[in-house]
Amino acid sequence: MYRRTLRKSDGRALILYGRAPLEDHIDAPSAGASESPNPHLRWHPLREEWVAYAGHRQARTFLPGPDDDPLAPSTDSRRPTEVPAGSWDVAVFDNRFPTLAADVPEPAPSIVATRAARGACEVVVFTQEATGSLGALPLDRLELLVDVWADRTGELGARDDVRYVLPFENRGVEVGVTLQHPHGQIYAYPFVPPVATRELAAQEAHRRREGRGLLEAMIAAEVSDGRRIVYAGDAALAFAPVCARFPYELWVAPRRPVAAFPDLDRDERRGFARALKIALLKLDALWHRPMPYVLGFHQAPTDGRPHPEAHLHAEIWPFARMPGRLKYLAGSEIAAGVFIVDVTPEQAAAELMEVDVSLDTAA
Amino acid sequence: MYRRTLRKSDGRALILYGRAPLEDHIDAPSAGASESPNPHLRWHPLREEWVAYAGHRQARTFLPGPDDDPLAPSTDSRRPTEVPAGSWDVAVFDNRFPTLAADVPEPAPSIVATRAARGACEVVVFTQEATGSLGALPLDRLELLVDVWADRTGELGARDDVRYVLPFENRGVEVGVTLQHPHGQIYAYPFVPPVATRELAAQEAHRRREGRGLLEAMIAAEVSDGRRIVYAGDAALAFAPVCARFPYELWVAPRRPVAAFPDLDRDERRGFARALKIALLKLDALWHRPMPYVLGFHQAPTDGRPHPEAHLHAEIWPFARMPGRLKYLAGSEIAAGVFIVDVTPEQAAAELMEVDVSLDTAA
Repeated sequence: MYRRTLRKSDGRALILYGRAPLEDHIDAPSAGASESPNPHLRWHPLREEWVAYAGHRQARTFLPGPDDDPLAPSTDSRRPTEVPAGSWDVAVFDNRFPTLAADVPEPAPSIVATRAARGACEVVVFTQEATGSLGALPLDRLELLVDVWADRTGELGARDDVRYVLPFENRGVEVGVTLQHPHGQIYAYPFVPPVATRELAAQEAHRRREGRGLLEAMIAAEVSDGRRIVYAGDAALAFAPVCARFPYELWVAPRRPVAAFPDLDRDERRGFARALKIALLKLDALWHRPMPYVLGFHQAPTDGRPHPEAHLHAEIWPFARMPGRLKYLAGSEIAAGVFIVDVTPEQAAAELMEVDVSLDTAA
Repeated sequence: MYRRTLRKSDGRALILYGRAPLEDHIDAPSAGASESPNPHLRWHPLREEWVAYAGHRQARTFLPGPDDDPLAPSTDSRRPTEVPAGSWDVAVFDNRFPTLAADVPEPAPSIVATRAARGACEVVVFTQEATGSLGALPLDRLELLVDVWADRTGELGARDDVRYVLPFENRGVEVGVTLQHPHGQIYAYPFVPPVATRELAAQEAHRRREGRGLLEAMIAAEVSDGRRIVYAGDAALAFAPVCARFPYELWVAPRRPVAAFPDLDRDERRGFARALKIALLKLDALWHRPMPYVLGFHQAPTDGRPHPEAHLHAEIWPFARMPGRLKYLAGSEIAAGVFIVDVTPEQAAAELMEVDVSLDTAA
């Protein structure tokens, strides 16, 4: 993997990744400076969680036409985009409308605790092509993306103000996507977020009690049961977890309890990319239409402590329960935290097993 | 308040409430029997929460036309709805597509813990009128609804299989509403759900540490600060909480730390109804269009233990961040549990304070 870090004229970073060497001369264009971001965090005393306020995000780019795609390579210097022309494969840059940023002022005191929203929000451009999808990218591009996620986790996680790195993808206008160009995001939080805190505590308790990891044990049980395994590779697998909270929810995990992206070995990176691609292709093939989803990678915090309890995995949460019918989070999910699922994981997995996908033709 | 419990031919309960005495002879129609519900719960070992599976819900009624409104009074015996004609004001009946029900079989064992989805799912018909909204109902109807929520909390909460009663309203197709007729729902859970568990633990810790309730202290601080108070009545108020997780989020609470609906005294019921109506009217008046929202009432569990830490309140979560632009829960909210809010509570409250609403004309 080749990599080069550039700096936009407005100070934001741009990092280009490629399988082949990058050209010598590449400029870093900018579609516009960050609009004096001053996001901040407030403590929610009832839920005991930090809430992020980022009012300037209201102005963010919303579903631009093909001629205004800020993630397409810049070809006209009068209308710069966020990424240059050139031979790069994947580009990462600081979000122009960040919720978290390295250099933010301390917020005013309030009746609850407040703190500066330190951290980072990066955009990951999966491809120079304006259309397509993560799952439909060639397998070697997904392998490169695994390397990119590992690189970002390492670099962002090494910062003093970052305790947790979350790569994710929101896919589809149904989940609020404002740019159609295939891309993901990375949030680097200055604290371990609530979902990770909760899951890691459960994993640590299990490890102490049982002598091995919780997800490792779940995977062994899933493999033994077999009804929900959608893909079983040597190094990684994809399955509909027995406790899915969304219809057609899939998890992708290495078999070995690897704590975070940087800890995956070469074979595991390839296996993880393959399992992820198959999971995403199957979801799109299920109803012959792009499945709206949120994809989040769960990994170990970067808080300087060892996390033998952590086990890297992707959770893919589809937001449709049947063709054209969305899954909504409403009263029970939001007010109570009790998810209601209309499709059992067994049924979902059976349907997804029936769907043929080809890694070759898709590539 | 007058009240009568009837039984539908398929066994489901129908409870009619009125300000005036109900007629002697009222039949309980049914739009169709429950389709052999066998919902069940599975334990999610990573998140440590129960997930509900209710596959038969896939067949539930979806945005019927005005002639097929199952919540309109039955006038044609060949096409029965769920509620009778007659002089009732509010009707409550067992959901035909329940996620939780009194009489459900034990589920098969699985690789995670499972249990029967015992409890109740009720539909609360706010009015015989097929159009309109909760906020636009006359004030005395909202007062009656507070009495109904108190009655349901008491009756359902007294059941051995119910530990928590959650009245809520999903409002707008944007949050997945499948019936336009003004109505809410009540879920009676066989456990204290995760959100309530978390909030009650925080409230209990605060009470032990500070000698008074957490929400009571927050309300005192909000009143003292003043910038986010949208309505301040003698018995109850409405405010944009300093730690809002949604744009234009409002909370409605009695000033006194009342644990649950049944504990409100007469003046508090009237004050709570008034504060709720003003909050909802302001949200609809803000952009001169119905605001999509989820409204949940947080109250004490019905687990037989005292809950001096609990403080009844409504949380109203709008799902729009500007006119025509929805607020989506995506990567950060779902994968990390970190909510990102585009509108500060101060800005939201300032805008809502500017909006005039009249209780009289609205009635």
